[in-house]
Amino acid sequence: SLLSVSSLSSHTLSSLCLSLLCVFQELELASVFVSDAQYNRNIFFDTSPRAVRLYLLYHRWFLKVLLYFFILVNLSLAVFEEPAVFPLPLWATMMVELLCLLAFSFRLVHYAKVIPPDKFWKDPKNICIIVILMLTLVDMIIYGALKATNYYALRWSRVLRPLLLVNVTEGRQLRRAFRSIRNALPQIFYVFLLFMFSVLIFSLMALKLLGKRGLQTIDGAPYFTHYLEIVFDLYVLVTTANSPDVMMPAYNASFVFAIFFIVYILINTYIFMSVFLAVVYNNYKKYLKEEVRQLVRAKRHKMVRAFAVLQEVREEGGEPVVTQANWNQVVRLVRPNIDNAHRELLWSVCDDKNQGAIGKAAFVQLADLLNIEVITLKSRPHPFHSLCPALYLSAPSRLLSRMVHHRAFVIVYDIIILVNAIFIGLDEENPMIANSEWVFLALYLLEILLKLYVFEPRTFFSRHSFWNWFDIIIVVSALIATIINSAVKISGGYTSRQILDIVFILRVLRLIRVVDSIERFRAIINTLIRIGPAILTFGQLIVVVYYVFAMVGMELFKGKVKFYEEDSTDPAKAYCGNPLLRGTAFAQLNYCKNNFNNVVSSFILLVELTVVNQCSGFATVTHVSARIFFFIFHILVVIVIINIFVAFVLEAFFVEYSVDKSDLHTSVERKITELELALEQEKLDDNLVNAMETIDNDLGTGQSAATNKPALMFKIASKRYRTVDALLQRMFEADLDPEDLAEDDSPEAQTGRNFGNPTFSSV
Amino acid sequence: SLLSVSSLSSHTLSSLCLSLLCVFQELELASVFVSDAQYNRNIFFDTSPRAVRLYLLYHRWFLKVLLYFFILVNLSLAVFEEPAVFPLPLWATMMVELLCLLAFSFRLVHYAKVIPPDKFWKDPKNICIIVILMLTLVDMIIYGALKATNYYALRWSRVLRPLLLVNVTEGRQLRRAFRSIRNALPQIFYVFLLFMFSVLIFSLMALKLLGKRGLQTIDGAPYFTHYLEIVFDLYVLVTTANSPDVMMPAYNASFVFAIFFIVYILINTYIFMSVFLAVVYNNYKKYLKEEVRQLVRAKRHKMVRAFAVLQEVREEGGEPVVTQANWNQVVRLVRPNIDNAHRELLWSVCDDKNQGAIGKAAFVQLADLLNIEVITLKSRPHPFHSLCPALYLSAPSRLLSRMVHHRAFVIVYDIIILVNAIFIGLDEENPMIANSEWVFLALYLLEILLKLYVFEPRTFFSRHSFWNWFDIIIVVSALIATIINSAVKISGGYTSRQILDIVFILRVLRLIRVVDSIERFRAIINTLIRIGPAILTFGQLIVVVYYVFAMVGMELFKGKVKFYEEDSTDPAKAYCGNPLLRGTAFAQLNYCKNNFNNVVSSFILLVELTVVNQCSGFATVTHVSARIFFFIFHILVVIVIINIFVAFVLEAFFVEYSVDKSDLHTSVERKITELELALEQEKLDDNLVNAMETIDNDLGTGQSAATNKPALMFKIASKRYRTVDALLQRMFEADLDPEDLAEDDSPEAQTGRNFGNPTFSSV
Repeated sequence: SLLSVSSLSSHTLSSLCLSLLCVFQELELASVFVSDAQYNRNIFFDTSPRAVRLYLLYHRWFLKVLLYFFILVNLSLAVFEEPAVFPLPLWATMMVELLCLLAFSFRLVHYAKVIPPDKFWKDPKNICIIVILMLTLVDMIIYGALKATNYYALRWSRVLRPLLLVNVTEGRQLRRAFRSIRNALPQIFYVFLLFMFSVLIFSLMALKLLGKRGLQTIDGAPYFTHYLEIVFDLYVLVTTANSPDVMMPAYNASFVFAIFFIVYILINTYIFMSVFLAVVYNNYKKYLKEEVRQLVRAKRHKMVRAFAVLQEVREEGGEPVVTQANWNQVVRLVRPNIDNAHRELLWSVCDDKNQGAIGKAAFVQLADLLNIEVITLKSRPHPFHSLCPALYLSAPSRLLSRMVHHRAFVIVYDIIILVNAIFIGLDEENPMIANSEWVFLALYLLEILLKLYVFEPRTFFSRHSFWNWFDIIIVVSALIATIINSAVKISGGYTSRQILDIVFILRVLRLIRVVDSIERFRAIINTLIRIGPAILTFGQLIVVVYYVFAMVGMELFKGKVKFYEEDSTDPAKAYCGNPLLRGTAFAQLNYCKNNFNNVVSSFILLVELTVVNQCSGFATVTHVSARIFFFIFHILVVIVIINIFVAFVLEAFFVEYSVDKSDLHTSVERKITELELALEQEKLDDNLVNAMETIDNDLGTGQSAATNKPALMFKIASKRYRTVDALLQRMFEADLDPEDLAEDDSPEAQTGRNFGNPTFSSV
Repeated sequence: SLLSVSSLSSHTLSSLCLSLLCVFQELELASVFVSDAQYNRNIFFDTSPRAVRLYLLYHRWFLKVLLYFFILVNLSLAVFEEPAVFPLPLWATMMVELLCLLAFSFRLVHYAKVIPPDKFWKDPKNICIIVILMLTLVDMIIYGALKATNYYALRWSRVLRPLLLVNVTEGRQLRRAFRSIRNALPQIFYVFLLFMFSVLIFSLMALKLLGKRGLQTIDGAPYFTHYLEIVFDLYVLVTTANSPDVMMPAYNASFVFAIFFIVYILINTYIFMSVFLAVVYNNYKKYLKEEVRQLVRAKRHKMVRAFAVLQEVREEGGEPVVTQANWNQVVRLVRPNIDNAHRELLWSVCDDKNQGAIGKAAFVQLADLLNIEVITLKSRPHPFHSLCPALYLSAPSRLLSRMVHHRAFVIVYDIIILVNAIFIGLDEENPMIANSEWVFLALYLLEILLKLYVFEPRTFFSRHSFWNWFDIIIVVSALIATIINSAVKISGGYTSRQILDIVFILRVLRLIRVVDSIERFRAIINTLIRIGPAILTFGQLIVVVYYVFAMVGMELFKGKVKFYEEDSTDPAKAYCGNPLLRGTAFAQLNYCKNNFNNVVSSFILLVELTVVNQCSGFATVTHVSARIFFFIFHILVVIVIINIFVAFVLEAFFVEYSVDKSDLHTSVERKITELELALEQEKLDDNLVNAMETIDNDLGTGQSAATNKPALMFKIASKRYRTVDALLQRMFEADLDPEDLAEDDSPEAQTGRNFGNPTFSSV
């Protein structure tokens, strides 16, 4: 009884299977296509029922979590391997690594079962993973053998580990980021050559102007006498790390030389760095647009395939359509947790003319419709209202509710937060201040309880009430931590530093809440929260690059610079345990902990190098050529990745400033408004709109509308995107060729062109 | 005989004046309108013949040069006033300043004579200048009196001096830059508040986490115990100036604290600074677009007024037109140095249908046509060819010519330049190396002479052959300097360091020539050269801001930090002459010359502060509150101005990447191509196109085409803009409302709306 009689009698169901099982398999296949289109997955899976089942399993969340868990374990092995933060015996790390390799192999075999063999072997991702796994295994064997025979051994395959993060099927966003870097490289390269030419010319001029004057640096070394040293010094000056130190000896000799440095900084720091940003930004936009265009085409193609599975011809010679019954089944399979009302809303958007069936064009937009987050607001009565209506609707209770709804309530609590900020700033040793903390905690708890009393709990805790969740988590954790802290203090008489730290952090974090009360701030913060997931992609990118550099850096520099604890009396402490550093600025400024002795300090050092390129110490302890390592790092991270990051933030903000809601949004919104208007006409006295305003402030609807309201309302979380792709698509929607929309009728004909790009698993 | 008979008999010449003088005055008025439209001057001058004459005089180049000379003198007075680089007696600087004030007053009176009195007093620019002049005079009197009676006196009016640069009529670009800053301020302000909120929250957290741990900085001072100190340290960390120093004590205690600093840098340095750029860029674009739109409207309005002066109705009831004769007169008045061929080309572009007269729409585009640089290429025969054709056309001479034209010639000279670069890098004390310089000089001279022999000299020295000029100037100066150097050396036996410096600089600059040979580099360099004039506007902006800060800084900090020459034996040298600096990093790093003791070192210090905000020394010698000065400077210069500068460079590069030539260009180009095609059809054997290619490489046409070529060719210097406004207009041309083009028929009706903006002298 899954399909209606009309669909059973249809001629377009091309297969012979008329059994219910077979019909269900068809529905499942269609739902997989829709789901792939919704999440922009481009995997050419086998369409046999068994492969579809395996494919569905492949995308189950727990398998993905497991995969990422093993990747994380694999990456974090560096913490336990030589040079280790927490040393573990070799056999232990080896066993764990083998386990990880096994897990990756399983995942790969699973993937191989899902897609046809020829597609599997054509995909560079899979080849890449296989090669990484093989190389790692070979390296482990060699390393184990060498270690067992006490030879010097190098775990070179560790630099390959982060590449797994890129090449797993789920690393789509990351691969895209890497592609946009690769695409920008040729353009960047030419600007970089010109920039280096400028640095070389300036260095030559500096050598000629300043080299013969017998000037000295602050350390008493000869100033600007060696050409390559000058090149490096001036390159570092571009990063502003050694400004104004590098200029001082020349400036002290004559102020005329300052002009040389000012011109240099103007050209190389300000103009060339802006040109880099311009080039990166321009390329980024160009290629991303092209990729998103291909994504949209692939998505439409998949929707057309889903349509082909579901379609039936109602009347002889008519256009093929999908019936509401089939449509409902598919949507239920794609998103099981969607409620009926929401699904009906989506259907009414698709089936504009109320025909009970939709054509291809209307069906294709389903993938985008599913990506619009529609919040279903059920105006349930408050539990107290159901339990004890007399009390809940009594005059004092209503007064309380009106109080909490009032704007003054927010202002009062903002003032409390500010007072709290001052108290936090004061000395907490003072018992008065220490006790005041309890008062503030009580006030915050009261706020939450009041809100819970007034607003319907399920609305209050809905997934989109970011600040409500923030409040509750912070306040409750602070309460627990404070209680534990007091208990420890009373019982043992001492204060645990760790717990106190947590308490302080939670207290201070609570102050952030004040930002939400100011309209202008909220807009900026919301944009930042929205681009958050995309920033995480950049985070992964940075981790991959950092990991590779950390592994190489550890091999090159481990143990060269040592850190001695504060209470150490070792005389080597003054020069970081390396006599070569005696008297250098590196040792004097106490930078000894900035070393490559383990993976954690390597990562922290690489962050510092990203901010300011300070590397003279390592060139001293090894060789001047060590600077090449830092030079490559700077080019890759600061000039390329950071600029792409800035380009992304710029673009995201421009989209926020300029683009209106997309057409699709508005069609859903129009429908919602129509429904609302119908309801409003029924009950004119109801202040639905006001209630909507309140929701906008992330407060649920509750008592105020509890009287005689419609049982259901919708609201579009228009500013939130389910996927990064949806955000990207919106970013370039305005520029997307309208011709593309016309082409979705015959995607098969264009397969070759659309999917010629090797970046997609070809269809 | 200035006007044709038809125009004399026209009824639309509304005035009664039929004398030639009067007709000439009308032409002059029209030409002033056209010229104003061309240069986007928005001055509502009196249209009486006398005022027009005065107005023309007002715009004469020597008066402008004189004005800027006096502004320069007035600004550079700071070099001679207390605290002076070159002290002059008070009466001398006072006299010069009075002279400057007098000059400004004259210019203002002249301006007042040109425009109607009510307009004059409504213009804030004029009021501003008058107030500045008055205040300066008052200050001078007070200062003189106090000084004469030996009281302490302050020349506070000096901060007003750079404002003259902004408020003179010619400072249009500068005023626009200031307006775009002012317009961006509200948006920046909210992001800045949020940013400061974040810094304050992080500081509070740092105080709570780190303040109680008894950590010490490298100087042994308590670490992170005072809230405002933390705020300032963390603010400086945003500029990356004190990274990683500020983090080291905490990081040494535990690596967990490094996470705090990393999160801080991620949020405040990377994300917030990107958001600042996004906000500034967005506002900059938005308001600039609006201003350019108004500029275009104002321009069209002026062209319509010019048209109204010149128009005549040829046939009863027909549209008013401007005859070619009148048009020619006006163009001749507007640009006297334009040649006949160029003018005829422009006319044939305007008068598309060859009717001998043009309507309003065609006339209005004249202002833009005049802004397109059309280079008239006269294929003159080479002087040698005229003088001695037999020799010049002989086989060896032709071979030589073919050699110089060959690509290998360029490559050979690029190799010579690279070899020269290596020789420069080597030790010039070596006599072989020193003498090789003569060889290179001879080679470069030979190159120039060869080119002069082969290419027509006037084409070779044309205004647009940037690299030819560059070559000649550098090589000839190097030759002269080297000869002087040798002469001095031989006669006196010693080497003048100054002359040698100049020789070295010239030698190294010569190497830049190599860039022009590489196509990709040329494109980037050309874009940079093109945005050069606009960058100068930012230069003025920076000078204005720096000057004000230098004046205030000198009053606050002069003499607090002293610089001692290298050979000084004064013990105070170790602490920059101020005991408060004893043992500080400021003195240790020998930053003593970074002081506010005179205007030159103030400017250099301010540049350093723009690059990296190092100001701890000044807070030590005066008061912690001195940091406010540096804080404001950083916000204004780094966050606002530098970001607007970056936004401008970004936009300029995007325009280069994306925008095609504007319609107007193409219409001129079409005409040129038509003319060429006609010529080519005449002489098919002529390789005109090849010759054009050669010109593209900045080489003139000469011998190769000397045989039987058309006497005249045009070429559009399409990538060069006569005015900054033209560049801006092109930048936003794509976005300019097409409705605007339709509105130019009735600009009078819209005057109120168009010029409601107070930033233009209202029309």
